[in-house]
Amino acid sequence: MSIILTVFANSPDGGRGLARDMPVRWALEEAGLAYAVRTVSFTAMKQAEHRRRNPFGQIPAFEETRPEAPPLVLFESGAIVLHLAHSHPGLLPDAPDPRARAVMWIFAALSTVEPPVVERSMAALFEQDRPWHAERLATLHERVHIRLSELAAWLGDEDWLEGAFTAGDLMMVSVLRRLSGSGLLEAHPSIAAYVARAEERPAFRRAFDAQLALFTAARDAPG
Amino acid sequence: MSIILTVFANSPDGGRGLARDMPVRWALEEAGLAYAVRTVSFTAMKQAEHRRRNPFGQIPAFEETRPEAPPLVLFESGAIVLHLAHSHPGLLPDAPDPRARAVMWIFAALSTVEPPVVERSMAALFEQDRPWHAERLATLHERVHIRLSELAAWLGDEDWLEGAFTAGDLMMVSVLRRLSGSGLLEAHPSIAAYVARAEERPAFRRAFDAQLALFTAARDAPG
Repeated sequence: MSIILTVFANSPDGGRGLARDMPVRWALEEAGLAYAVRTVSFTAMKQAEHRRRNPFGQIPAFEETRPEAPPLVLFESGAIVLHLAHSHPGLLPDAPDPRARAVMWIFAALSTVEPPVVERSMAALFEQDRPWHAERLATLHERVHIRLSELAAWLGDEDWLEGAFTAGDLMMVSVLRRLSGSGLLEAHPSIAAYVARAEERPAFRRAFDAQLALFTAARDAPG
Repeated sequence: MSIILTVFANSPDGGRGLARDMPVRWALEEAGLAYAVRTVSFTAMKQAEHRRRNPFGQIPAFEETRPEAPPLVLFESGAIVLHLAHSHPGLLPDAPDPRARAVMWIFAALSTVEPPVVERSMAALFEQDRPWHAERLATLHERVHIRLSELAAWLGDEDWLEGAFTAGDLMMVSVLRRLSGSGLLEAHPSIAAYVARAEERPAFRRAFDAQLALFTAARDAPG
């Protein structure tokens, strides 16, 4: 089996591992799978060749080639992580009910926690010069704090969302990491500790180092 | 097996079937499963009893009781639809690769198409009195149009996203229906036709009629 992951040629996160290839890299490392990387520029991402892999012109795209089968092409980080978790041990419980609960947390991360987190990032990036920026940012911060409080109440003093580490934690932490630098995580110590605990996993470190190496090489390339 | 779905006591959509119980009701109908409904008020939704089912204090919540097993409790409409699609025939292809592609469209609906759609609804509802409302609404409309154009390019003249109808179409149409009344769908005739095609499915009609009957009964109840 050979896997190719399409990622940003120059990630706008400055090598902090906040782009959507990061949860996929992390899941690949947790599953012990080797993969190759294809890079796309912001321009190429919106052109026909990449849109054949992802009609919305986004990263990541995932291609899995196996002997005697057509390649499987997937986009959406949640779908790719779930595919890897279903196909390889280590990311989901085996029993159906605990498995459904772990998958539920992938959706909770992407559908319930991520929207205010991403809206906040977008507002911070693109609306700084608007007269209404401070007012809107305060509203968005409040929305993020509500979600973090609810998540902290669920987590209590557990290490992970459903007992052992699952793909649900992987996706939730990937979403929460997008708050790094905002100061918002620090108001919720148990959530900050949850993120730090996940970042200590060897598979996370390998994934982080791989994206950082790519970012650094692109930044330092001549021309 | 017995299934209980927790939904809004008084849906803010006025009976148009735009709340997040609708894709779950629809999936239950496609799978031919009977279910009971529990209603929660906006107040009760944020209290401890409901938060044991959904820590984020949202609807829907899903409870499946089977003999000799503890109940399975799930939240997140995407996770519930996926659980139903995995447990019952008719909502996902059997072959692994087509199945992964169909699941991918559930994520695409929720993670890529829904965010600008929901941001637009929220802006239209809660920001009408702000001096910057028109400017922000125009930006959000443009973001929605981009996603609809990309989706239309993928769909071409096909009936469904991946050949036959799947849970991916069910979730995509559920998201697109949140644009009804905005006039935005009408600018993309193939997408409007795609939504109409899905709404003609008998399972959709049954789900729609059930939520409308509940809404009407609550509206007409004394006191």
